[in-house]
Amino acid sequence: MNREQLYQKIQERKSFLCVGLDPDMDKIPPFLKNLENPIWAFNKAIIDATKPYCVAYKPNFAFYEAYGKMGYEALEKTIHYIGNEHFIIADAKRGDIGNTSKMYAKAAFEVLGADAITVAPYMGKDSVTPFLSYENKWIIVLGLTSNKGSEDFQFIKSEDYKPLYQQVIEKVASWTSPNNTMFVIGATHPESFIEIRKLIPDHFLLVPGVGEQGGELESVIKYGRNNQIGLLINSSRGILYASKEKDFDKQAAIQSKKIQEIMAQYI
Amino acid sequence: MNREQLYQKIQERKSFLCVGLDPDMDKIPPFLKNLENPIWAFNKAIIDATKPYCVAYKPNFAFYEAYGKMGYEALEKTIHYIGNEHFIIADAKRGDIGNTSKMYAKAAFEVLGADAITVAPYMGKDSVTPFLSYENKWIIVLGLTSNKGSEDFQFIKSEDYKPLYQQVIEKVASWTSPNNTMFVIGATHPESFIEIRKLIPDHFLLVPGVGEQGGELESVIKYGRNNQIGLLINSSRGILYASKEKDFDKQAAIQSKKIQEIMAQYI
Repeated sequence: MNREQLYQKIQERKSFLCVGLDPDMDKIPPFLKNLENPIWAFNKAIIDATKPYCVAYKPNFAFYEAYGKMGYEALEKTIHYIGNEHFIIADAKRGDIGNTSKMYAKAAFEVLGADAITVAPYMGKDSVTPFLSYENKWIIVLGLTSNKGSEDFQFIKSEDYKPLYQQVIEKVASWTSPNNTMFVIGATHPESFIEIRKLIPDHFLLVPGVGEQGGELESVIKYGRNNQIGLLINSSRGILYASKEKDFDKQAAIQSKKIQEIMAQYI
Repeated sequence: MNREQLYQKIQERKSFLCVGLDPDMDKIPPFLKNLENPIWAFNKAIIDATKPYCVAYKPNFAFYEAYGKMGYEALEKTIHYIGNEHFIIADAKRGDIGNTSKMYAKAAFEVLGADAITVAPYMGKDSVTPFLSYENKWIIVLGLTSNKGSEDFQFIKSEDYKPLYQQVIEKVASWTSPNNTMFVIGATHPESFIEIRKLIPDHFLLVPGVGEQGGELESVIKYGRNNQIGLLINSSRGILYASKEKDFDKQAAIQSKKIQEIMAQYI
């Protein structure tokens, strides 16, 4: 999916919500656990319930890898089932030397069919750019993350007093284009969006950390949006685990609709 | 495998070689390609040929993920086949927020049975430490990598003139122990081992980049070893693809024995 197509979906659905698909066997409704593949059954119901309210899905690969073959099968089916009407983010935080990043790209884009993959920047240019050899496929590079640990390295100031996360954003932006690159910026640092928008006014930002992790939806929109919205705001646990009962999918729909309605005011 | 057991294997085999298992369908001997699972057949032959000469194997997860289900099956079989006589490194470069890193740990240690996993440090303490809740399991954190892109961020100097990679090593070492943590230090920066050994005299270092990437074995040993050797030196392509013919496994044995014989002089 290219940038114009993504923006069109945002306008049509009046939403820039990304639903994070982090299926945890300890949290999914107990009545699903006897099924052959509970994770796939859970995801299918969540997708059916939430698809009118979101423009993107973000399967978090750890939550599939942790369940071995069953998890891998659920991941394949999930991405296939989502189809072309939503932007699909392989949330995998990959990144390695060139020939290895190329293989991770193949796994996410060719084998699984995602539109984008999250990428860790620590290993630099030749670990990031091999993902960009596919047309209309995206990288989403870690800029400023939502977790407490983001303070450990991302705010380290260099000799010219610029925090590491800003240097990462500037350098990665100089190697790539807003048409194939986004950045992960956690909702837990809303004030940082002002500085970040000075560096990259045109890029889309993937924003985790709203809800469970404490980030506030409206301040992110206020400080983060640009003239094409430029935001994909993720919610995972608040939608997936709104209920543990038979109505879990209805509750997921209600939670995602609630977010969508706030977003609609800004479109 | 704990530290003493690893050191014992190093002494017994007079080797601190790690064989990197990066099976690439474009590079494996063509006569294997008609088999049901060429990757598994290739790995099995490589392991049989090289196991007397190495103490560790490092399957690089990208090279399995790129082949979908067939790759996953090969990875499972490979790790199971290696067994307990070698230290098994899940080379996956993972790292995410706490609840996600916990899932990656489960995938590598419980589901697949590796001894260690490579971890990217960018997201900080709560992305690194969840991997450490398993007894006798290890993290191997990216310090200074072997690729050209290591220059992009890892050498950024902070206000107190310390390059980022040194800050990563110091902080991670302060959260963890030499009994459960190693660092990735590329062979392509041999001079840096002197500084690194001042910071972490006791830790094991996983050293990629010898051979294909241009790092020199003997200078790494000279500058990097400590009183328990403290090095796992990886070779992948130089061993795996020494020949494309029927004798590929014999050639892999010859190449790994050659490295082992150099290492033996230092034990």
